[in-house]
Amino acid sequence: MDQLLSDGIKNTPPSFVRSILKAASDPDVTSFAGGLPNPISFPQEALLESMQRVVAEKGAAAFQYSATAGIDELRQWVADRYNTRFGTDYVLEDVLITTGSQQILDLLGKVLLDKGDGVIVENPTYLAAIQAFALNQPVFRTVELTDQGLNIAELEAALEAGAKMIYLIPNFQNPTGLTYSAEGRAQVREVLSRYNIVVVEDDPYGELRFEGESLPYIGGTQLPHGVIMGSFSKTVTPGFRMGYILTKDHELLANISIAKEAADLHTNVFSQYVVYDYLTHHQLDEHLVKIRDLYRSQARAMVEAMEEFFPEEVQFTKPQGGMFLWVTLPEGISTMDMFDKALARNVAFVPGDPFYAEPGKRSTMRLNFTNADEETIRAGICCLGEVIAEELAAREA
Amino acid sequence: MDQLLSDGIKNTPPSFVRSILKAASDPDVTSFAGGLPNPISFPQEALLESMQRVVAEKGAAAFQYSATAGIDELRQWVADRYNTRFGTDYVLEDVLITTGSQQILDLLGKVLLDKGDGVIVENPTYLAAIQAFALNQPVFRTVELTDQGLNIAELEAALEAGAKMIYLIPNFQNPTGLTYSAEGRAQVREVLSRYNIVVVEDDPYGELRFEGESLPYIGGTQLPHGVIMGSFSKTVTPGFRMGYILTKDHELLANISIAKEAADLHTNVFSQYVVYDYLTHHQLDEHLVKIRDLYRSQARAMVEAMEEFFPEEVQFTKPQGGMFLWVTLPEGISTMDMFDKALARNVAFVPGDPFYAEPGKRSTMRLNFTNADEETIRAGICCLGEVIAEELAAREA
Repeated sequence: MDQLLSDGIKNTPPSFVRSILKAASDPDVTSFAGGLPNPISFPQEALLESMQRVVAEKGAAAFQYSATAGIDELRQWVADRYNTRFGTDYVLEDVLITTGSQQILDLLGKVLLDKGDGVIVENPTYLAAIQAFALNQPVFRTVELTDQGLNIAELEAALEAGAKMIYLIPNFQNPTGLTYSAEGRAQVREVLSRYNIVVVEDDPYGELRFEGESLPYIGGTQLPHGVIMGSFSKTVTPGFRMGYILTKDHELLANISIAKEAADLHTNVFSQYVVYDYLTHHQLDEHLVKIRDLYRSQARAMVEAMEEFFPEEVQFTKPQGGMFLWVTLPEGISTMDMFDKALARNVAFVPGDPFYAEPGKRSTMRLNFTNADEETIRAGICCLGEVIAEELAAREA
Repeated sequence: MDQLLSDGIKNTPPSFVRSILKAASDPDVTSFAGGLPNPISFPQEALLESMQRVVAEKGAAAFQYSATAGIDELRQWVADRYNTRFGTDYVLEDVLITTGSQQILDLLGKVLLDKGDGVIVENPTYLAAIQAFALNQPVFRTVELTDQGLNIAELEAALEAGAKMIYLIPNFQNPTGLTYSAEGRAQVREVLSRYNIVVVEDDPYGELRFEGESLPYIGGTQLPHGVIMGSFSKTVTPGFRMGYILTKDHELLANISIAKEAADLHTNVFSQYVVYDYLTHHQLDEHLVKIRDLYRSQARAMVEAMEEFFPEEVQFTKPQGGMFLWVTLPEGISTMDMFDKALARNVAFVPGDPFYAEPGKRSTMRLNFTNADEETIRAGICCLGEVIAEELAAREA
C-alpha cells in the first residue's frame, strides 16, 4: 500500500491527539485535554423547535441538494452580525457557509498552496491547521507569539522569505489563550499591508470574550486579501459542523467555492435552515451571556488553582476568553514524557508538541477549562501541580 | 490574486454545470439537466420523528464533537446492509461515514494522487470526480465504456501506462445510465487483479435498481485495495450530506481518516444519529419500493417518448436503475452549442462536454428523468426532438 500513498498524506502528521483524547476519556480521569465546548452552549430544545418549523415551512427544500455557498438567509445573517459588531460593510456575497471552520483550512490550503510555497503560522498554532496545510507540502514559516501579538522582526523575516498566506488566531488563541492587543494588531496590519499575501484570521472564540472589549481584526475588510473564519461550533453546536468564511476578495472566494463543490457539494442544508431559524427566533446575545459567565468562572478557578498549587517556576497565560490556557514549564522538561505520569494520577492535558509546525520535544501544555466544574478543576490542578513538582525535583536530582 | 492561487485550483475545471442548472431553474423550463432525486424519496415526517427521539435519547452527545470515522451504530448498519445484500463479511471497522460520497473523491485524491500520478476513469465519467481529482494534478487515463463494462484493450493499456487508482461507476452510471454485466465485471476484475491499484466503485444508485438483479462488485472484498462508495443521498436525503466508504484495506482507511479529520473533523453527528434512528424504526426496503416504482415509470416514459419523437440517427441508453440516461447525436453536432437553442424552447439538458476528462466539443448529452411527471417528460422530449431535428437539418443543409 505504501507505494500507492501520496507524498501529501505521508507529509501529514499523524493525529496522536486523538489517541490522547481517547486515553483521557476514561470517566475516572479529570481531562483538561479535550477541546469540547460545554454542553450548556447547545440550545437543544430550541433547536428541536426550529427543526419542527423548518420541516413545516421549508419542506422538501430543506432535504434536497442546495447551493455550494450556503443558504442566502444565513449568509446575510452572518454579514449583518459582523457589521453590527465591527462596523464593517459585509454583504451576503462576501460570505460562504462551510462544513465547520475546519473545512476552510482545507479549502485555503488547496486553493493557495503548492508544494514548497510559504505559509506563515504562529508558533505555536492550532494543530489541525498544521495538518490541513501539510497535505499541500508547503514550507511552514513560524513567528513567535508575544503577549501583544507577533514578534515583528520574525514576521518581517518570514514575509521576506516568501509566503502566500499567513494564518493567525488573534483572539484567545488555540492553544495559548493569548489575545493580540489593539497596538499589536495595528503593528501586524501595517507590516502585512506591504505584501501581497492572504491574511487569514481564525476566530472561533470571538463571541466568547468574558473579559475586556472586542478588538478590530487585523485584515478583515482592511487588507485586500483579508479573510475571517467563523464558526457556530462554540456558540450553538459543534455537532452540526457549521462554519463560515467572510472576505471581500471575490476572486479568492470564487476559487474556494470551486474547491468546496469538489469537496462536499454544499454544507448540510437542513442544519443551515435550523441554525438560521434558531438565530431568528432567539436572542443569541442572551444565550452567549450564559456561556461567557460559565467559562469566566471556570477560567478563574483554573488560574487561581494554578497560583495556589503550581511550583513558582511554572508560567501560564490568563485568557480573556475562549476555552484554553497554556502552561510553560522550565526548559528541558518534556510534557509528552510527563503525560503518562499525569494520566496514572488520573489527570490529562495535551502536550505542546503537536501545536508546533516544527517537530520536537516541548515543555509546554494546553489545558481546557470548559468541561469541568470549579471543584473538579481545583482538584485536578492540585494533582497536576504535584506531578509537575515531582518532575522538577527529578530533574534537579 | 492570480499569482497567489495554487496550480491545483488553476487545473480544476470551472463548474459551468452550476450555471447551466441555474439557467434551467426557471419554472417555465422543463429541466432534464438536474441531478436531483425526487422529493418522494425524502421521508420528512419520519425524519422529524427521529429528530425528536434523538434529542430525547441522545441529548448533548448528538450536538457535541464526535469521532472522525462516524458513529459506530451507523457504521455497523452499513456493514450489515452490504453483508445482507452481497454476502460479504464487512465489519464496522471497514466503514467510515463521510460528508456525502463526494467527500470520498476528495479524500481519495488527497491520499493517493501526487502531481503526475495516473488515475483511470471511465469515458465519460462523473464530472465532480474529475473536479475532485484534478486538484491533485494527476494524469487522467480514460477507458471507453461499453454496454458490458469497459473496453479491455484500453483498460490494459491504461494500467500498463501506470495508475494508482481506477474510478468506476458500475451501476446505472452517471452520466450514461449504463450498467456493467456480470461477465463484464468478471473480466475487469481479472485484469485488475494483476496490478497493484486501488479499485474504487462509486455506487450512489445501487439501491435504485428498477429492472434486473443486483450484481456483485468488481473489487469490493475481492481485490486487496477494493473500495466501495455509498450514499444516503438517493435513498433518504441529499440535504444531510451523508455518505460512506467501505474497504477491507485498513491502511488506506487510516490515511483517509487522517485526511478527513483535517478536512472537517467528522460528519454532522446529529444527522448521523437521525439517519440511524430512521433506519432502525422503518423498513428501508419498503421506502425504496416507492422510489423504484416512480423512477421506473419515469424512465420508461422518457425512453418511449424518445422512441416516438427523436430522429432515427439519435442513440440513447435504456437504464435499469438510477436517475439518468445518455443521448448520442451524430458526430459533429455540439450539444453545448445546441443548449441555448433548447433553452429558448424551454427545455434543458446537460451537454456531454464536462463528463469527459479530456476537454472538447461533444455530441452527447445527459438527461435526468426523476424530476418531472410522465406528461411533462413526454412534452419535453417531443420539444427536444424538434430541436435535434432542426440541428440535423441545418447540418445537412
